[in-house]
Amino acid sequence: MTPSLPKLSTLAFALALSFAATAQPTTPPGITGFSPNQQAVELKTEADFKQQQDPARFRQHLERLCSVPHVAGSRENEQVRDYIAETMRKADWKVDIYPHDIYLPKGPGEITVEVVTPTRVPINTKEFVFKEDKYASDPRVMSGWNAYAGNGDVTATVVYANYGRKEDFEQLKAMGISVAGKVVLARYGGNFRGYKAQFAEANGAAGLLIFTDPADSGYMLGLTFPEGPFYSESVIQRGSLLTVPYTGDPLTPGEPALPMDGPIKIKRLDLKDVALPKIPVTPLPYGSAIEILKRMTGIKAVPAGWQGGLPFTYRLEGGPELTVRLKVQQEKAIQRVYQVVGTLVGSEFPDEWVIAGCHYDAWSFGATDPNSGTSMLLSMVETLGKQVKAGYRPRRTIKIAHWDAEEFGVIGSAEWSEQFREELVQKAVAYMNYDAAVSGRTFGAAASPSLKGLLIETTKSVQYPDSNKTVYEHWLGHKAGGNPTRVAGSSAPAVVAGEPTIGNLGGGSDHIGPYMHVGMPALSAGMEGPTLYHSQYDDLYFYDKFVDPTYKMGPMMEQVVGTLTLRLANADLLPFDVVRYATDLDVHLRAAEMAIKTYAPTYSIAPVLNEIASLKKNAEAAEAARRSYLLGNKPEKLAELNRTMRQLEQSFVDQKGMAFGNWYRSLYASSDPYSGYASWMMPGFLYEASLKSTKNLPDLEARYRKAIVSLSDKLSTLVQAMNPPASVGGGNK
Amino acid sequence: MTPSLPKLSTLAFALALSFAATAQPTTPPGITGFSPNQQAVELKTEADFKQQQDPARFRQHLERLCSVPHVAGSRENEQVRDYIAETMRKADWKVDIYPHDIYLPKGPGEITVEVVTPTRVPINTKEFVFKEDKYASDPRVMSGWNAYAGNGDVTATVVYANYGRKEDFEQLKAMGISVAGKVVLARYGGNFRGYKAQFAEANGAAGLLIFTDPADSGYMLGLTFPEGPFYSESVIQRGSLLTVPYTGDPLTPGEPALPMDGPIKIKRLDLKDVALPKIPVTPLPYGSAIEILKRMTGIKAVPAGWQGGLPFTYRLEGGPELTVRLKVQQEKAIQRVYQVVGTLVGSEFPDEWVIAGCHYDAWSFGATDPNSGTSMLLSMVETLGKQVKAGYRPRRTIKIAHWDAEEFGVIGSAEWSEQFREELVQKAVAYMNYDAAVSGRTFGAAASPSLKGLLIETTKSVQYPDSNKTVYEHWLGHKAGGNPTRVAGSSAPAVVAGEPTIGNLGGGSDHIGPYMHVGMPALSAGMEGPTLYHSQYDDLYFYDKFVDPTYKMGPMMEQVVGTLTLRLANADLLPFDVVRYATDLDVHLRAAEMAIKTYAPTYSIAPVLNEIASLKKNAEAAEAARRSYLLGNKPEKLAELNRTMRQLEQSFVDQKGMAFGNWYRSLYASSDPYSGYASWMMPGFLYEASLKSTKNLPDLEARYRKAIVSLSDKLSTLVQAMNPPASVGGGNK
Repeated sequence: MTPSLPKLSTLAFALALSFAATAQPTTPPGITGFSPNQQAVELKTEADFKQQQDPARFRQHLERLCSVPHVAGSRENEQVRDYIAETMRKADWKVDIYPHDIYLPKGPGEITVEVVTPTRVPINTKEFVFKEDKYASDPRVMSGWNAYAGNGDVTATVVYANYGRKEDFEQLKAMGISVAGKVVLARYGGNFRGYKAQFAEANGAAGLLIFTDPADSGYMLGLTFPEGPFYSESVIQRGSLLTVPYTGDPLTPGEPALPMDGPIKIKRLDLKDVALPKIPVTPLPYGSAIEILKRMTGIKAVPAGWQGGLPFTYRLEGGPELTVRLKVQQEKAIQRVYQVVGTLVGSEFPDEWVIAGCHYDAWSFGATDPNSGTSMLLSMVETLGKQVKAGYRPRRTIKIAHWDAEEFGVIGSAEWSEQFREELVQKAVAYMNYDAAVSGRTFGAAASPSLKGLLIETTKSVQYPDSNKTVYEHWLGHKAGGNPTRVAGSSAPAVVAGEPTIGNLGGGSDHIGPYMHVGMPALSAGMEGPTLYHSQYDDLYFYDKFVDPTYKMGPMMEQVVGTLTLRLANADLLPFDVVRYATDLDVHLRAAEMAIKTYAPTYSIAPVLNEIASLKKNAEAAEAARRSYLLGNKPEKLAELNRTMRQLEQSFVDQKGMAFGNWYRSLYASSDPYSGYASWMMPGFLYEASLKSTKNLPDLEARYRKAIVSLSDKLSTLVQAMNPPASVGGGNK
Repeated sequence: MTPSLPKLSTLAFALALSFAATAQPTTPPGITGFSPNQQAVELKTEADFKQQQDPARFRQHLERLCSVPHVAGSRENEQVRDYIAETMRKADWKVDIYPHDIYLPKGPGEITVEVVTPTRVPINTKEFVFKEDKYASDPRVMSGWNAYAGNGDVTATVVYANYGRKEDFEQLKAMGISVAGKVVLARYGGNFRGYKAQFAEANGAAGLLIFTDPADSGYMLGLTFPEGPFYSESVIQRGSLLTVPYTGDPLTPGEPALPMDGPIKIKRLDLKDVALPKIPVTPLPYGSAIEILKRMTGIKAVPAGWQGGLPFTYRLEGGPELTVRLKVQQEKAIQRVYQVVGTLVGSEFPDEWVIAGCHYDAWSFGATDPNSGTSMLLSMVETLGKQVKAGYRPRRTIKIAHWDAEEFGVIGSAEWSEQFREELVQKAVAYMNYDAAVSGRTFGAAASPSLKGLLIETTKSVQYPDSNKTVYEHWLGHKAGGNPTRVAGSSAPAVVAGEPTIGNLGGGSDHIGPYMHVGMPALSAGMEGPTLYHSQYDDLYFYDKFVDPTYKMGPMMEQVVGTLTLRLANADLLPFDVVRYATDLDVHLRAAEMAIKTYAPTYSIAPVLNEIASLKKNAEAAEAARRSYLLGNKPEKLAELNRTMRQLEQSFVDQKGMAFGNWYRSLYASSDPYSGYASWMMPGFLYEASLKSTKNLPDLEARYRKAIVSLSDKLSTLVQAMNPPASVGGGNK
């Protein structure tokens, strides 16, 4: 999985509050959280850091990481793991490798798709060889496949189900079309593919073919591979179908999947108790799907919005003459995967951890997804390593995590988050996710409220290559393009006039465990562009030709990520944007109330909303107190103050968890449990609204109110600790 | 031409003011303009009228009219003319035939399109024969062609110009693509096709191919002919390219094109002074256009919004290897066409004329466009004829006009309007246009303000077949579908909350002369649906299968049109909705001011807007006075009062005419002079705004103010004449 698709969906507008300009007016250029002395040190460190980037070094990592396909669980992926560990060790980082034994498919297995009647037509499920692209003929490239597909061999008539969303299956039913016993054809887009399988199976389908439509990802968007960067007729989107109501290993929800042969025995679920897909499912490129779709003869044409880009009218049914066979035989087993974490121990606050990560397993070569992010992080590890060799050391501990088995369901990072949950709650400052972070030339970001100010300040300090603009100015100047997987019903980002849009963190990548299960502040940032997502062509040839022939985007992102990391690691007082909690909560709670009012027009969550004013007052007082405190040179209490600051985000961790899956513990954010990719802000309320129920609202109101009061009280505590003699407006209730 | 495409664009919303309910609360059910006694007679007449409709009779006319292709100027069209005249004479109507000698193409002539290099490929320019459709093999069906195309034989490389709109050619230039010396490919939609040719020629193109794109009118909208009602691969949109800055015969602007051999000699322009297209132009179906488009190899893909529905990425240029030949040799000459007008002389007010019309010439068989309208009007003529035979006679004169040569540029009706301009100014009550009026099952209408109330009242009195709804309730309940020729920049209709949307009258049909040149109140109404617009398949087979297999829509429209006609013919005081002048003017003048403010932000047309309040006061007083007057039984002044009412719309006739073409004399409405189809309300201001000029605004403000004051004064005169003893709020200035 990758966050790049849902991330794009959050960038619908480009609007100039200057947080930095207002936050520290007394210390221009003003870095939030730093005393004047410490700021001088920091600026010198950052300037030194920014001298060290090298496009050639970034490309060299990318080439080594992406020389062969390296799916999780494969020998080739272990070689990638070893390269990562060796590179970090050479840079003087301590490296730990955390093994986890998880339930994984062993590969595509046997896949057969064919038209059986009216005439037998074998359907291609592999990508074409192109002589321009030396990687495309690698024998280790796997056929297109969907991980966790059920096993079966079915032959049946066909039904087209648009994007295979909940509402699409409902509309089919309303039109009198049954999918029971049929092979369903659904196109990619609109939700996480696993939900297409879940809904098809729930409606009785015999099998599912998920195809890429040229209207969503192909020739209708621009020139196609190898001439251009869009999907051509044989390009296949691989991907997992896992939709269990938790994230991670399907057999060990809430517990780390520690090695079977290790000292600690983790209880694993029985497979029969795990809701994995039972029907066969496989993906098709549009050059193959057309062989079925063009033979459909059902008399009903599709309703508005269901027509795709193939050159005929789409129909709802194939008719009785058209039968299609789909066979999938996919072996699955408990297999070992490895999380690789490099650590640079902090000089002053070793037990305060700044964590950044990106997965390293890939569906094929993984040039953009994920290893553009890996290469950037390895380059940063090397740059920081050089600074350490030259005698410098950051004040807090920095951890760079390389996750395994993300593609199968964000598994490695979730297991590691479960394994170190209690320690992370105590020590973690923030988690930053850089999955596929250098996949294009357009900057985008999503973040929890407290990291938004830092993102803005940091992007203002880095130059966009070959331009006279900062990354911030570039970000402000572009509007994000269309996103084929844009999901109706996802939460709109809280937009501040004059700022670039900072998205909400949804599903689809390794921030889920740290953010939604552990409760750490989190962000995701990267360069976006057209990609051949989850296809075999996501390789160096594609990267050289279409993503960034100059290789300057990697170094630029290294500067952004290095600056974010150094500021979090070196600030006197953590640079959290606490006022954003109040303003963003106000937006998202009002949106949740609107969702409730659609079916309960007079219902109000005023008791929750009414806490925002007090929260805002305390947050503003805390920001003011931090500025004064930093000017006053009182370093003795930093550890205590930062301990409280690290607990702010924990206010949203709810021990009951969400009603749709108690693994999700954040009252603030979750992925949309009906689509998988989209973000839900205030998920407790949104889930209740999705059921058109008011039954649990009083309980939810109490829990949300408690979270906000808890956050407000911590801010009040901070204010009192920073301004000991004076009495300030409190929030204790 | 037909209004059905632009008309659809006006039906974007469905929103329930009841005009009738408020207009005559004292005389339920309340017919505006009738005294209680006269209303009783009218209701009896209408009830009798509504007994007489017959689906079989409607179909019989349609079959006779559409048995062979009958383009203007052909022998076959003279046979249609004779059938129309004979049918009306048999129904006891007086029939007059008005000949006009106009400059017309004699047919498609010679058309050759071929790919010359890299390989020779002949390109088909004719529609396929389908055995299901007996009409499709008629040898009289002409190849696809564009009337008034220039003659030439060119071979050149190709450029794709999207819809060939002004902004498309500007965007090509901005992208560094020259069309000079090239064959341009532009798709239908977005403007009147003549402007595609005008802009291509102005930019130096050697030739133009206009193709139907499956994204606009083909398989992407639904199942295609003969399986469904949408364009299949060989369906060709024929049509005229005439864009002279006036409507009618290109050689006789402002003057009737009276016969060359008649007593009155009309001065005709020299051809060299008439801006007819000089470059060869011809239309292609998408099954032919694909042969060129798929061979294009230019390196630039099209920008956003330019991609169509053929199965590859569209490119801006064909590249140097691809050359295409286009030859057009189209003979043109002065030819005779005939306007056929049936008259039923009124019993009380013979010099007050209620006029309805529809053209009879067609691009091929003309089953929907136009002759569904012709058949409906002939049926109505017969029904009224029966009533006359039974001893009834309407109070005012009714004229039913069957226009010729509409398809070549709305020519016949424009010549007749020029010929009888002064008499029409004195005698005409209103013009109602029913071009292609029974083309589907969805009601739509456009009207000048004073006829909107009548439309609403009338549709409430007619039942929609096989439903428990009135036509009005049906109209209110549907939202119009998408319109492929929707034009950016067209005036939005003045929408009243709770009412169906009543569109603005734009270009494209026979209301132009009566409404925009003579200055009569006008409306256009009809049943809409998917049509194979201007193709050879617009025949009885298509009508039977896709338009209305029940043939009940024709009789229903006859009831609507009959009721509209009878109410206009029999009202004591003309049922004009005078308050609408004020409310609609307010909407349209404010929109015009907004258009001006985009480049002159502080400019205000307040001196014009300020007249609305007084107009509204007088209009409301006039409506109140009419109600009282009708209750008072004072018939002696009806002729005088109605004479003044007939002059209301004349307030907008401006002797200087519009700056883009002084043939257009209405300050209220014109067709958009940049696109042809769309409507411009307040065209004087909109044209100045299109030039981003303020120079002529003071003069325009004076002329608009004068028009509104004149209208207001006439209303004041009416009020005084209806309420002689009392003094009321006046508008004399």
